[in-house]
Amino acid sequence: MVINSKKAIREPRITLVGAGPGDPELITMKGANALKDADVILYDALVNEKVLDYASADSIKVYVGKRSGEHSYSQEAINKLMVDYAINYGHVVRLKGGDPFVFGRGFEELNFAAGYNIPAQMIPGLSSSISVPGLQQIPVTHRGLSESFWVVTGSTASGAISNDLYEAVRTKATVVVLMGLNKLKQIVKLYQQEGKHNLPVAVIQSGSTEEEKLAVGIVDTIEEVVEEKGIGAPAILVFGEVVSLHPSFQPIKDFFQAIKEEL
Amino acid sequence: MVINSKKAIREPRITLVGAGPGDPELITMKGANALKDADVILYDALVNEKVLDYASADSIKVYVGKRSGEHSYSQEAINKLMVDYAINYGHVVRLKGGDPFVFGRGFEELNFAAGYNIPAQMIPGLSSSISVPGLQQIPVTHRGLSESFWVVTGSTASGAISNDLYEAVRTKATVVVLMGLNKLKQIVKLYQQEGKHNLPVAVIQSGSTEEEKLAVGIVDTIEEVVEEKGIGAPAILVFGEVVSLHPSFQPIKDFFQAIKEEL
Repeated sequence: MVINSKKAIREPRITLVGAGPGDPELITMKGANALKDADVILYDALVNEKVLDYASADSIKVYVGKRSGEHSYSQEAINKLMVDYAINYGHVVRLKGGDPFVFGRGFEELNFAAGYNIPAQMIPGLSSSISVPGLQQIPVTHRGLSESFWVVTGSTASGAISNDLYEAVRTKATVVVLMGLNKLKQIVKLYQQEGKHNLPVAVIQSGSTEEEKLAVGIVDTIEEVVEEKGIGAPAILVFGEVVSLHPSFQPIKDFFQAIKEEL
Repeated sequence: MVINSKKAIREPRITLVGAGPGDPELITMKGANALKDADVILYDALVNEKVLDYASADSIKVYVGKRSGEHSYSQEAINKLMVDYAINYGHVVRLKGGDPFVFGRGFEELNFAAGYNIPAQMIPGLSSSISVPGLQQIPVTHRGLSESFWVVTGSTASGAISNDLYEAVRTKATVVVLMGLNKLKQIVKLYQQEGKHNLPVAVIQSGSTEEEKLAVGIVDTIEEVVEEKGIGAPAILVFGEVVSLHPSFQPIKDFFQAIKEEL
């Protein structure tokens, strides 16, 4: 239990806030206002710490994310901390990267709070699945190229890629894979088995931040480009014709056109 | 051509801004800052006019949306207006509901601006596909229920439902249909043909605004519930097991359980 002796304790309350893809200006007004009001903020590894500048200077900020080699909190421990802090300090903001309900386990946290009768609400954030390609001028949908997009996790609870990916590779949907960089080889293989060797692909690391890196290629070349560019996690993968709209795709098109004409 | 004689004209510039699902507080900080800076704002039918309160009082605000019975602008006319205003007034914000790159034709507008060598950028907004179910406490993904979500348009350029929907109904993905209320009957039929009569469905009108309305049911009942609740466009459809997490789904579950026990 965390004990507060500093000031009158407000009613316990929990707000789940989506911080968006990274750029602190890409949080919503509502999310920033919740941070300003918070007595305690519990934040994840995927949250850019600059987002915390919206918070009151005397709020308590607790890092509960996982970073390699560091101590990390289990989901259960985070749930308990969240409730403990709310009871002892008042308004807790649980700040998560992207949107709390897109592979964020946010619903589990809301449920846990409800079990303690603590009022809880959720403020959505920009999901990186849409906004990160978008900021690279790759629209997830575009007339004539894509009438839908399918967002899949690269790492399920079991550690394997989602079964949904086996189906996604067969469709015309733009396929966005979150947390899938270390499964790139496997996903590329699925596309190759479908004969989609030339489908455009983009891999974007740390979208919307200063560390942003981009690799653009086709199914058969993307692994090589990712290695060349030194791309690491967190990264998102985008498979689909919409990637061909990216300016850096034009030289790739020209190259294949030239080969075709030579043959 | 629109002629400005009021003040020194700034360099032409176009910013595409996503206004989010409706609640004015759900715009990003960056989007609100762009509105504040804009000389001219061109906004759509799906934009809540309260969002315009972030804009400078002396900026020009032009409604270019489509409302039944009113004059509306073609995409071409909007593109031209956007460029005309930028050349004559400086910074134009093109404000769109949701996210500009999710069925928003935003990329076409950026492209048009590029053709005139006018610097253009895009600021993402919350797509209603994720945020509107989320605000109703329906997460598009949830461990054990859904490892992916597939967002499809209900109205393609041809007016028919997207071919992607025929495939989407067969998968385990949470399926979110935007602009599909008038195709509900047809989509329900597709699910019934797959034998998914009891799949949970939610239909949400005007999510995040004061006009919000919700219908929750299963494939076989949703049309009736939508009619009962008097739901109209704009609305989004959510098909998937995640809808069962909504509190109003519990009585539906209990009802079917009771029927099962009686048989």
